Amino acid sequence: MPEILIHIAEGRSAESKKALMQDITDAVVKNFGVPPDRVVVQIVESPKHNKSRGGVLFSEM
Amino acid sequence: MPEILIHIAEGRSAESKKALMQDITDAVVKNFGVPPDRVVVQIVESPKHNKSRGGVLFSEM
Amino acid sequence: MPEILIHIAEGRSAESKKALMQDITDAVVKNFGVPPDRVVVQIVESPKHNKSRGGVLFSEM
Amino acid sequence: MPEILIHIAEGRSAESKKALMQDITDAVVKNFGVPPDRVVVQIVESPKHNKSRGGVLFSEM
Amino acid sequence: MPEILIHIAEGRSAESKKALMQDITDAVVKNFGVPPDRVVVQIVESPKHNKSRGGVLFSEM
Amino acid sequence: MPEILIHIAEGRSAESKKALMQDITDAVVKNFGVPPDRVVVQIVESPKHNKSRGGVLFSEM
Repeated sequence: MPEILIHIAEGRSAESKKALMQDITDAVVKNFGVPPDRVVVQIVESPKHNKSRGGVLFSEM
Repeated sequence: MPEILIHIAEGRSAESKKALMQDITDAVVKNFGVPPDRVVVQIVESPKHNKSRGGVLFSEM
Repeated sequence: MPEILIHIAEGRSAESKKALMQDITDAVVKNFGVPPDRVVVQIVESPKHNKSRGGVLFSEM
Repeated sequence: MPEILIHIAEGRSAESKKALMQDITDAVVKNFGVPPDRVVVQIVESPKHNKSRGGVLFSEM
Repeated sequence: MPEILIHIAEGRSAESKKALMQDITDAVVKNFGVPPDRVVVQIVESPKHNKSRGGVLFSEM
Repeated sequence: MPEILIHIAEGRSAESKKALMQDITDAVVKNFGVPPDRVVVQIVESPKHNKSRGGVLFSEM
């Protein structure tokens, strides 16, 4: 605890996703005072045709 | 806001999924009075062997 | 199936939330061709101090 | 109802995932007294490079 | 890992929810072979007027 | 996009939760290069009797 889910469309680099998960872990440890290994982060990635903003698919932006 | 997650098994056509995301966006705009570009919809799709109803896999229905 | 989660901050009227859930159910039935009673919608509502956009709490907007 | 989401990294066998979904379904039926076909379980599986514990990717453990 | 979310409408007893979380934990340990303290289960409970099946609120069933 | 959900048991201070949402927003902006107002963070908080680790309720730890 806590468990963090990040919902994104595909297309981000592995490096940026790794760095984000590390930064979020650090933020939880700093603010909640929990041991790092209690912090689980999962990226739930959907293809761009499975995500929309304003009714427009990310694959059509 | 709001953020909408749709959990389904694989197998729906791209057309039906696109239309669904558009209709849901319209429904949020109509009922909550928010600008369309505040409405994010993501389809979280799992293979049929990763989803069950009544303990029966969608891949075995 | 499908299961739909709507993530919002508190403050919407019961009437608007009910209408939204009904409209989303209709949209799923229309686009996916499933029986209505297979469509479950849940609103996951957090207090305004537990949700942010751009790092600004909804309670401070 | 209820709808259960299981968030894991890839790498589990189809057999173990099927058995888990069945056992969870049984647990819900037993404890909540609902008909089995009301119980939907979905496994949301991410690649090991999209999940971390303690800031360490599952792909690097 | 894994992290399990159970989405329900309010109205279940504390005893039944506790037993369900324990049974689900046991099922994960048995099928995935992970240590128990890696298994986190969270019940995400919404008021009955915030959940619907077939477009009908749980508060009106 | 992205939309971030943080699943916790109740009991954290409003200050620590606000700071966490701000830090996570900053981390997304830094690593993904998106405008801040595209980053939505929601804390999904459950009572301690609705969350368990290792089958033990947070209310009993």
